Amino acid sequence: MASTSNQSVYRATTTAPVNIAVIKYWGKRDTTLNLPTNSSLSVTLSQRSLRTLTTASCSAEYPPADTLNLNGSPQDIQSSKRTLACISNLRALRKALEDADSSLPKLSTHPLRIVSENNFPTAAGLASSAAGFAALVRAVADLYELPQSPKELSRIARQGSGSACRSLMGGYVAWRTGELADGSDSLAEEVAPASHWPEMRALVLVVSAEKKDVPSTEGMQTTVATSALFAERAQNVVPGRMAAIETAIQNRNFHDFAEITMRDSNTFHATCLDSWPPIFYMNDVSRAAVRLVHDINRVVGRTVCAYTFDAGPNAVIYYEDKDSEVVAGTVKAILGPNTEGWNGVFYERLANVTAGVSLDQVDSRAVEVLKDGVSRVILTGVGEGPVKVEDHLVSETGEILSTL
Amino acid sequence: MASTSNQSVYRATTTAPVNIAVIKYWGKRDTTLNLPTNSSLSVTLSQRSLRTLTTASCSAEYPPADTLNLNGSPQDIQSSKRTLACISNLRALRKALEDADSSLPKLSTHPLRIVSENNFPTAAGLASSAAGFAALVRAVADLYELPQSPKELSRIARQGSGSACRSLMGGYVAWRTGELADGSDSLAEEVAPASHWPEMRALVLVVSAEKKDVPSTEGMQTTVATSALFAERAQNVVPGRMAAIETAIQNRNFHDFAEITMRDSNTFHATCLDSWPPIFYMNDVSRAAVRLVHDINRVVGRTVCAYTFDAGPNAVIYYEDKDSEVVAGTVKAILGPNTEGWNGVFYERLANVTAGVSLDQVDSRAVEVLKDGVSRVILTGVGEGPVKVEDHLVSETGEILSTL
Repeated sequence: MASTSNQSVYRATTTAPVNIAVIKYWGKRDTTLNLPTNSSLSVTLSQRSLRTLTTASCSAEYPPADTLNLNGSPQDIQSSKRTLACISNLRALRKALEDADSSLPKLSTHPLRIVSENNFPTAAGLASSAAGFAALVRAVADLYELPQSPKELSRIARQGSGSACRSLMGGYVAWRTGELADGSDSLAEEVAPASHWPEMRALVLVVSAEKKDVPSTEGMQTTVATSALFAERAQNVVPGRMAAIETAIQNRNFHDFAEITMRDSNTFHATCLDSWPPIFYMNDVSRAAVRLVHDINRVVGRTVCAYTFDAGPNAVIYYEDKDSEVVAGTVKAILGPNTEGWNGVFYERLANVTAGVSLDQVDSRAVEVLKDGVSRVILTGVGEGPVKVEDHLVSETGEILSTL
Repeated sequence: MASTSNQSVYRATTTAPVNIAVIKYWGKRDTTLNLPTNSSLSVTLSQRSLRTLTTASCSAEYPPADTLNLNGSPQDIQSSKRTLACISNLRALRKALEDADSSLPKLSTHPLRIVSENNFPTAAGLASSAAGFAALVRAVADLYELPQSPKELSRIARQGSGSACRSLMGGYVAWRTGELADGSDSLAEEVAPASHWPEMRALVLVVSAEKKDVPSTEGMQTTVATSALFAERAQNVVPGRMAAIETAIQNRNFHDFAEITMRDSNTFHATCLDSWPPIFYMNDVSRAAVRLVHDINRVVGRTVCAYTFDAGPNAVIYYEDKDSEVVAGTVKAILGPNTEGWNGVFYERLANVTAGVSLDQVDSRAVEVLKDGVSRVILTGVGEGPVKVEDHLVSETGEILSTL
């Protein structure tokens, strides 16, 4: 709780990161509690590239209703059961503190004013809800000075958006499916901090989709209900992959990490295609990225890069910093240095790189498709979890500020 | 055996059809014998649209080596183990007849001269090997006057090309996976003749692929060896679908036939995507066809059409004749009547049809993608099995003729 000078408006502000799964979350066993059908694992991406900034504030003097302002627009918080669930869980934890210590200000009785901004366009299709709910939960928890660990808070963030639970921590994060019906053991936990394997890079190829895809919540319900292959992945395929990729991460074994990542992305999209009606998130541009990655690995003679696709056509390509030339350099040679988004801290490494593997050695059709179909590039890497900051989006007197 | 006037050259000629599976064959449990991992079921397509014409001839006066001429080009028969296997099986059956009846001419000792022509371009990606091997086996069996039934001959044709075994019969044909190691019970059998449900139509949208796909023999081996989901389809999903689609065919229940067909196409392509490295046969044009079919069914308010995709991007759309306007009429309205291939006997039905469902009610992006991506249309329907004809491709004196 960052109290203000006059103590009438209480504020806490945090940033939170995006995460990109390498073992995908797809399927809920409980839709209200967001309990998954299988465990998942993600890499938290650096907030130097992509982050949500959220201020949680409260005041007895605010009008009597919680409010949420997102990227400059007021949200209808009452219609978002998921947001209400997160807030009521956090408020209950604050209430318990206040009940145990009567000297604490009764913040649980104050209306909340939450203001949140992403530093990346929602249209980029970068699962902004994960960063958004992680930031909301972290900011309110900080405002309320809750003692719960990130792992404990992940139970709450999960109810906002499943994958948000993994954005409460940095590095390599597992979300354990858990077994209990109340979801109390369905939690995120750090498998390894970013510092364990800091060389991991992520190159996001933003592909402009012509049309809105099936929203992921609806899509995963369709898959669970209709795919003949879904249960096999959830029950029999993922557990082995979780164990194997955790070992790969512990050993910083990029080859194994990469192959499991690519295979699980493929299996996930296979269950989407096997749904009824079928769900297609990958398009011809996505497939060109798949081909390029396989071609680069073949030309280099070892596995230097791995693709993964979420519920949309964007490719995320993981690689290690030492292979920047052959991976990001090749993409840069294909797309040109002027593609929107070639910038930021990780780009410095590439500034003087003009070519990777010879483009004569990769599929020429894939090169053309990528050139036409990738609109924007984000070059980032593994990063830390939420960070408490003082760039408040609510003033000391409760006014909404903006960095936009 | 159609003997010639001077009895020195023996000839038999047959046509054989293409078949398009609705429960897909994908995966071999024995690569030499072409034994499948799962049963499959197909619709034999009318030879009024697509057919292979094959003459098998033999003569003691031919030079001492079997020869095969395909679409005007001599083939290296010795390098095709599959062709050799078919011929040696058929010759052994003839030899047995000759051994039992010494009055028979010793055709099994004569060199074979086989000449074959397709009436459709190989480039159309229409599994010509099925029709080709079915015609070869049927023509040689006729030449040898073998008493074996089509079902018994299917054991031989299967060794040429798995799906060829289903082209020995008309109508609706199942290929039973069988259980025996020697493949003797892995046979095709008629589920229903074409006359049982003659109204079935098939509209083939030929999509120009930029690049050769993974050949199906190689592709299915990759899937068997690497897909985490493959065994689930082969062992647990397909048996139920086989039973259900046979019931649908017996009852001429198009809704069930259509839904099982679409789902199994999707599951098959899902196992391809789940292979390592992943195999993609469908492209954005294929997916536009999927969307159009779902949209037509939605607009009409019942299931009037079904897509299926083999190991390539071409869409085959099944529908019943009574729904020609809403299905083929819609496709005609999208592609225009001048698209190559809008002709033939089944097109007469559509001659005065200019529109199906309103194009305002189907996905406009899919319409554009189809307009750009479909190069040719083949409008056909369920049809009969091989037919013995007198249009020989070898003259009475053994010269190769051609209809090309």
